[in-house]
Amino acid sequence: MSRKAGGKHVSVSQMTTVRLMMPTDGNVLGNVFGGAIMRYMDEVAGIVAFHHARKNVVTASIDRMDFYAPVYVGNLLILKAAVNYVGKTSMEVGVRIEAEDPLTGTTAHTGSCYLTFVALDGNGRPSPVEPVIPVTADEKRRFREALTRRRMREATLGRKKE
Amino acid sequence: MSRKAGGKHVSVSQMTTVRLMMPTDGNVLGNVFGGAIMRYMDEVAGIVAFHHARKNVVTASIDRMDFYAPVYVGNLLILKAAVNYVGKTSMEVGVRIEAEDPLTGTTAHTGSCYLTFVALDGNGRPSPVEPVIPVTADEKRRFREALTRRRMREATLGRKKE
Amino acid sequence: MSRKAGGKHVSVSQMTTVRLMMPTDGNVLGNVFGGAIMRYMDEVAGIVAFHHARKNVVTASIDRMDFYAPVYVGNLLILKAAVNYVGKTSMEVGVRIEAEDPLTGTTAHTGSCYLTFVALDGNGRPSPVEPVIPVTADEKRRFREALTRRRMREATLGRKKE
Amino acid sequence: MSRKAGGKHVSVSQMTTVRLMMPTDGNVLGNVFGGAIMRYMDEVAGIVAFHHARKNVVTASIDRMDFYAPVYVGNLLILKAAVNYVGKTSMEVGVRIEAEDPLTGTTAHTGSCYLTFVALDGNGRPSPVEPVIPVTADEKRRFREALTRRRMREATLGRKKE
Amino acid sequence: MSRKAGGKHVSVSQMTTVRLMMPTDGNVLGNVFGGAIMRYMDEVAGIVAFHHARKNVVTASIDRMDFYAPVYVGNLLILKAAVNYVGKTSMEVGVRIEAEDPLTGTTAHTGSCYLTFVALDGNGRPSPVEPVIPVTADEKRRFREALTRRRMREATLGRKKE
Amino acid sequence: MSRKAGGKHVSVSQMTTVRLMMPTDGNVLGNVFGGAIMRYMDEVAGIVAFHHARKNVVTASIDRMDFYAPVYVGNLLILKAAVNYVGKTSMEVGVRIEAEDPLTGTTAHTGSCYLTFVALDGNGRPSPVEPVIPVTADEKRRFREALTRRRMREATLGRKKE
Repeated sequence: MSRKAGGKHVSVSQMTTVRLMMPTDGNVLGNVFGGAIMRYMDEVAGIVAFHHARKNVVTASIDRMDFYAPVYVGNLLILKAAVNYVGKTSMEVGVRIEAEDPLTGTTAHTGSCYLTFVALDGNGRPSPVEPVIPVTADEKRRFREALTRRRMREATLGRKKE
Repeated sequence: MSRKAGGKHVSVSQMTTVRLMMPTDGNVLGNVFGGAIMRYMDEVAGIVAFHHARKNVVTASIDRMDFYAPVYVGNLLILKAAVNYVGKTSMEVGVRIEAEDPLTGTTAHTGSCYLTFVALDGNGRPSPVEPVIPVTADEKRRFREALTRRRMREATLGRKKE
Repeated sequence: MSRKAGGKHVSVSQMTTVRLMMPTDGNVLGNVFGGAIMRYMDEVAGIVAFHHARKNVVTASIDRMDFYAPVYVGNLLILKAAVNYVGKTSMEVGVRIEAEDPLTGTTAHTGSCYLTFVALDGNGRPSPVEPVIPVTADEKRRFREALTRRRMREATLGRKKE
Repeated sequence: MSRKAGGKHVSVSQMTTVRLMMPTDGNVLGNVFGGAIMRYMDEVAGIVAFHHARKNVVTASIDRMDFYAPVYVGNLLILKAAVNYVGKTSMEVGVRIEAEDPLTGTTAHTGSCYLTFVALDGNGRPSPVEPVIPVTADEKRRFREALTRRRMREATLGRKKE
Repeated sequence: MSRKAGGKHVSVSQMTTVRLMMPTDGNVLGNVFGGAIMRYMDEVAGIVAFHHARKNVVTASIDRMDFYAPVYVGNLLILKAAVNYVGKTSMEVGVRIEAEDPLTGTTAHTGSCYLTFVALDGNGRPSPVEPVIPVTADEKRRFREALTRRRMREATLGRKKE
Repeated sequence: MSRKAGGKHVSVSQMTTVRLMMPTDGNVLGNVFGGAIMRYMDEVAGIVAFHHARKNVVTASIDRMDFYAPVYVGNLLILKAAVNYVGKTSMEVGVRIEAEDPLTGTTAHTGSCYLTFVALDGNGRPSPVEPVIPVTADEKRRFREALTRRRMREATLGRKKE
């Protein structure tokens, strides 16, 4: 996989967003639906991928997500998203989700997830993306781990996916 | 893991639902968001788990999902969901998602996913669920595969999750 | 009214869909609005008509509907819809609506309704629809009753509506 | 059916409301769904019934509605609603719906409909409603026609519904 | 600022609209968000401006708004809007907002606000608007006050804004 | 107005949030409604005030807002909010809003606004808020300007509002 010269820093597109959980996000007991959380996660991760690629993106895959703790209507959902790794036309975005009780300030780790987006050109076909440049130790670790995940998946599939 | 006598057939709670994809489900180019699809998937799978358990349920985990083909605003999303396996207080629900162009009747396989739900008692604590009884060859295969997934996860985690 | 050869079975397009009633569907006491139920009913019936005609459809009329029992936020709305009768460019779709308390499994008959849809061509003008073939005794009875309704309406109006 | 002394004029609760039709109200071609129109109609009629009764109300029935002309996303939906008739615990509300192209000011009669609401006491049981006093010739005609509709329905049903 | 001959009366476009406050409009305690009220206010004022201009309009400014009293989910929001003043391509619309408890009929003045809209031609550029003709004493006072506000703003800005 | 010892830094509660503008946020031409922008602005500002006060808050007033540039469906709305000033029970939050075309990365200043929130205790009555501590030169300037606005308003009203 050849690399274009240049590339963008992770910090250019990374983002933290906060959403107030509303009655439409949960059941009658006030538990926010897992699917509602994934809807917000995909929106935020998609904005990060769009910001990195400056091209339209579509979700290609969403990795396993475990919900460690319940989220309630009235909580604030805090979503922290950054580009971990960039392939030729795809990007892995990592999202960490926390739920905060705004009255107490207590936050709980709801879950974390990796999403893969593919950049599209004007005809809706996969289109090259500028590389990402990890700078901090954390960014470099996430880059390496994403690369490992990618290689394991390719090995499992017995074929290159891009 | 002990079993209560009895149990319910897969067919009692399995369900097919169809949803028309609306402008709020997609971007300005008409691509339905992966997160919107997962929102609908979690709702349908949650109803199936609720129907099996006859108790409130919350999403504990959502497995990796690959989106094989784009879904467009104006398509019909067809969601087929069934209980694959039941643990002591948890259920694995499998969902197969197809997108249909209602003008031509052409359908494409959008993706498939496994979701785990935990049943809750009136105090919001995990609560026992009746076993599921697989009857057809397909149901038995899905039961075995879900059990394998569960054991692999437990091995990976080095601890029993339930 | 001439018939094209062929036609489609009722079973090809008939559909059962389930929707979880959300806080936005009802008033502050938790009663689901009659209008919210009709919104879901029209959507499901429209999908059935679309599936039969494989053409865009618009609602031409909705028959009287009596709400036999209250529906509450948190209930599951079960909508069963099928094509009863097909005219030259229009279709009558019958919908039976039940509400289920998902905790107990108790269902109540909310109401039943007949909707007429007109198929449209690419210019938005009424366009011919393939006939429907009733097979079971129930389907044949619903076909005859729909035809009777149609004739009574034409007699009342003193003109053929199609 | 005994009457309480007094009563309220039709004009006290009658109402005209205007709603801008949004992309979520229609299909991808821009046709507003019949069910979306009925959702708005039921909301407006319910407010009129609530204003007359000063008690919570639920929709008991919605009469046949014919859609005379298409409504498009971007149109203004004009809903004119008034109490036609009051039984012991129920009210018939009539709604006339027009669609306006806001650029040209052209309006078309979309349809008209009668809805019956039942007033509820604090325990959710039918509760007496103050009579309505028709004053104008139109109000008196609508009162008589509603009474006729009611009697015909009772005759058909072979029983008093209230 | 030259005037076209003719013009339209305030009464032609003025409007009163009522909206039921839903769970999505407020927080978990049932307080309707100030922003939700402004969303409804802008929609109603925009319809009034559209009705006066018979051209697409966009919001150019919204004046200071004080919320005098809380509005609760389940309340009816009553919005009274009228064109106060018309510039060459802009219109000031005044809105008075009241909240009503539908059970008691008690209304409270929530707040009042002035919004300025600009009419657009087919290319999205400001486009001339017919003058407004104030007739009643109230309409004439509101016209004068709007003109004063406009002149003060122009003085403050040290430039003509239209 | 006495001050409690301590207080919180502006940086503790300040926040930047990004929202993708959807078809429901705008008209059929794709112009996002001014009211939709104010809805998002009030939500974000309310979260900032909630974070500072750690008490429920309600919007007491929203200052004049001028929309400098159009926002389109498909744009990203970037909202930057911080507490400018804290009174005894109220907080002024300033919000700067930009719109970004995600394809080009071009951003335009949509507008800026000041919102006042009042903190409430468990009985819904105004409740004391910890002071805010401006640190940077910008924070100190915004604090002074907010204080000036407050004094001018009190002078105009001829009474202290808190």
